[in-house]
Amino acid sequence: MVATAATENTTRRGRSARPQRREGAVTATGVPYIQRNIPTYDILSEENLQKIERTADRILAEVGIEFRDDPVALDHWKRAGAKVDGLLVRFEPGMLREIVSTAPAQFTQHARNPQNNVEIGGNNVVFSPAYGSPFVMDLDKGRRYGTIEDFRNFIKLAQSSPWLHHSGGTICEPVDVPVNKRHLDMVYSHIKYSDRAFMGSITAEERAEDSIEMARILFGADFVDKNCVILGNVNVNSPLVWDGTMTNSLRAYARANQAAVIVPFILGGAMGPVTNAGAIAQSFAETLAGCALTQLERKGAPVIFGNFLSSMSLRSGSPTFGTPEPAIGSMVIGQLARRLNLPLRCAGNFSNSKLPDGQAMQEGLMSMLSAVHCGANFILHSAGFLDGLLAMSYEKFVMDADLCGALHSYLAGVTVDDNTLAMDAFLEVGPGSHFLGCDHTMRNYQTAFWDSTLSDNEPFEKWSEEGGSTDIATRANRQWKKTLAEYEAPALDEAIDEALCEFVDRRKAGMADAWY
Amino acid sequence: MVATAATENTTRRGRSARPQRREGAVTATGVPYIQRNIPTYDILSEENLQKIERTADRILAEVGIEFRDDPVALDHWKRAGAKVDGLLVRFEPGMLREIVSTAPAQFTQHARNPQNNVEIGGNNVVFSPAYGSPFVMDLDKGRRYGTIEDFRNFIKLAQSSPWLHHSGGTICEPVDVPVNKRHLDMVYSHIKYSDRAFMGSITAEERAEDSIEMARILFGADFVDKNCVILGNVNVNSPLVWDGTMTNSLRAYARANQAAVIVPFILGGAMGPVTNAGAIAQSFAETLAGCALTQLERKGAPVIFGNFLSSMSLRSGSPTFGTPEPAIGSMVIGQLARRLNLPLRCAGNFSNSKLPDGQAMQEGLMSMLSAVHCGANFILHSAGFLDGLLAMSYEKFVMDADLCGALHSYLAGVTVDDNTLAMDAFLEVGPGSHFLGCDHTMRNYQTAFWDSTLSDNEPFEKWSEEGGSTDIATRANRQWKKTLAEYEAPALDEAIDEALCEFVDRRKAGMADAWY
Repeated sequence: MVATAATENTTRRGRSARPQRREGAVTATGVPYIQRNIPTYDILSEENLQKIERTADRILAEVGIEFRDDPVALDHWKRAGAKVDGLLVRFEPGMLREIVSTAPAQFTQHARNPQNNVEIGGNNVVFSPAYGSPFVMDLDKGRRYGTIEDFRNFIKLAQSSPWLHHSGGTICEPVDVPVNKRHLDMVYSHIKYSDRAFMGSITAEERAEDSIEMARILFGADFVDKNCVILGNVNVNSPLVWDGTMTNSLRAYARANQAAVIVPFILGGAMGPVTNAGAIAQSFAETLAGCALTQLERKGAPVIFGNFLSSMSLRSGSPTFGTPEPAIGSMVIGQLARRLNLPLRCAGNFSNSKLPDGQAMQEGLMSMLSAVHCGANFILHSAGFLDGLLAMSYEKFVMDADLCGALHSYLAGVTVDDNTLAMDAFLEVGPGSHFLGCDHTMRNYQTAFWDSTLSDNEPFEKWSEEGGSTDIATRANRQWKKTLAEYEAPALDEAIDEALCEFVDRRKAGMADAWY
Repeated sequence: MVATAATENTTRRGRSARPQRREGAVTATGVPYIQRNIPTYDILSEENLQKIERTADRILAEVGIEFRDDPVALDHWKRAGAKVDGLLVRFEPGMLREIVSTAPAQFTQHARNPQNNVEIGGNNVVFSPAYGSPFVMDLDKGRRYGTIEDFRNFIKLAQSSPWLHHSGGTICEPVDVPVNKRHLDMVYSHIKYSDRAFMGSITAEERAEDSIEMARILFGADFVDKNCVILGNVNVNSPLVWDGTMTNSLRAYARANQAAVIVPFILGGAMGPVTNAGAIAQSFAETLAGCALTQLERKGAPVIFGNFLSSMSLRSGSPTFGTPEPAIGSMVIGQLARRLNLPLRCAGNFSNSKLPDGQAMQEGLMSMLSAVHCGANFILHSAGFLDGLLAMSYEKFVMDADLCGALHSYLAGVTVDDNTLAMDAFLEVGPGSHFLGCDHTMRNYQTAFWDSTLSDNEPFEKWSEEGGSTDIATRANRQWKKTLAEYEAPALDEAIDEALCEFVDRRKAGMADAWY
């Protein structure tokens, strides 16, 4: 029942079904996901990691976590042996680690085009677009609320990029659709306009259930029960509170054998301590509890260990994004998650800037490289975010996607073999000559270097006289319009399309519009 | 004879003479240099490092390096046991490693204000401005040739930033001064307008000698003979050629017990192989030979192992900067340099963009983080470069300096102790509350997070209504003008000033102007 028609979209043509690991081999075409060829960047000593883990254990045992509006979750905890006192749940050291040990270290999320299946966990890296902003912006029209048309446009831009691997979830809020019906249009749009893996709704249990049901229409109920085909990104209400809306959705995904992504958002000094070590310990404790709850709902269900640390402007109290302390914090979270043997989600390419300017790309890359270095397997917010996660920028989306392309080459690392060591070239060229036409260059140049389609590398005169003295945002503005104009939807089985539309229509007809 | 008057410049007030290592403690004031508290990022295995070293050995033994227009250098090599055949010098494996073992692993470069002395080597990191561009640019006047006024302006901007540690060298070419007299005005300007350490000229042996002589006037000849007070940045003429202009200057610095910085610039596919492993092996071989030559000139002289890898646009043949392959290559160079026990120079914050836009900051940070991660001790080009090293941008200079501030916090890593683990805060705040006013936050917030002076972290409405919807380049334009307007020169001993001016006047009077 799975639609397997290969896309004929020109930007995707030539994609290989297998990740390519050869140095430079990713310059022309994408891969379904990245298999990293560089190690993780482990910055903290064993002794200090243990201190953070012990603090997390103490938070869980001495302070505890509140589970609100979800009696089933409380019941799970009681049966698992936690100390439940009203809504407050406390955990003996080691208990949660034991529970999460049944979750897989790596799993496949299936896409409707099997060539786009992604492996989540291990040495694999998946780039997924940004998630959750109410606003969209572009250089022509400025900032406005997102619509379902914007939502579809971003799916099309993602699908057209060889450097993103996933269609994402709530790329922007389609504010022109009633709140209680958005999830239906969003999940349908992911299925219709992309043939990559995607995420469903988590804003209410029934919306999570609807999302999963639509995945069953696409993939078949049996297949869904045995395979991960949809992710749900659930947030902790930090500090140390899980709301029922979130745990009900979390349990809906786990119950269906689908992967919840467990993410505290900790703004240091507000939702957590103002010092990094404490914020990391808290994030670890909150995420561990969420991951464990998935296993109590259904042992063996896939789950992703997530985090989102942020800092604060000490002058204004505003949250800050893409700053050094959360980048460093992510590296430590990576070390801790690997000790649990769970797939890791981090975030990258986010910024507080209101424009796709130097601040946006500097803060974006600071966060993105920390996600890449820390060993994140699923990197949410890989493209588009500005304004402290409040706005999706069309220009920044394609700028970020281009950067994701560069990171394919970065993660390929250095290949060291007889060909790349190039001793034949040194013997041929010798001192004082050049390598431009030597055999070795001819053999290797086509795949040697990342070549951005947005960066300007021309001489100044050519840039100013022929290129119109553009900045990268202006070139990005042209590129997203061209990409949307050339977009062609991947073929979707007509019977599935009809069944999905029928489901959406029926569900919409069954509810009055709700606007908040 | 050293001028030690502490600067009263307000931007420097409160600077501590000792580097601060406490997490977050660098948010308000600078340090003379950074002592890194995070490990280096080592990406290559021992086996692959050895393969690269063996290839470098083969390049040196089988291909060799030409030393042109410097009979003394050839004589040094003969006496050291190298095979000299005309200009071509070949080296037995291990010979150069043995020779460089007499160079110090770490040394102090003295500044005229001893509080600004920098330690080069070990775990220390020194940020120095960009070097060598013929053009300058700003948002008001666009691009034009640099002048001595621009040169002084950049020294003043560097001196005013708490986040740069060094005054640099040829920050831009002062094209309005005759070529054969520029070095005198440049070295004088560094001494006059900054009280930090600086670099001298290398474009001719007598200019190197003049630079060192001016340092002797400032510090005293005896002091200079025993201590490093000036650096000279010499370039290999890759592939595998050392020009006499460079080796004569290199030997002048070494002879005076001053530190040469040995830097091949390898554009992969042109001056070196198109594959990273080969380019790294070549860079290693060329630098090793230069470092060894300093020791043959004067055993024990300080020397810095440098590198500058670059890639090429495969569509246009243009060099590209801030791309992933050279970033990865720097990490490997770092591993190799540490095995030689030599201080390491890398470059950061450079870009091909013609504007201080998103491309500039993304490419800049890609290169800068690679320099930081690879363990570079001296990071040249830390501020200002655009247009593929052809132009210094006033705006990018202050944007980069601000980023250097963020990197102080980044390199401070994570402090793990009872205070930062914040168990008291968790016990005080508990689930569902906030940390904004708790004791732990009050004790720590003032030094908790990096707070940029250029990034916008305001809500959108405040940014657009009160802030004028500026991008970071526009804010940087305001900042550099304000900084220059408020700049006050650090006090300089009048007798030294007069002696320097007398030297400059005398040397200028002794030569006719040369304009190329």
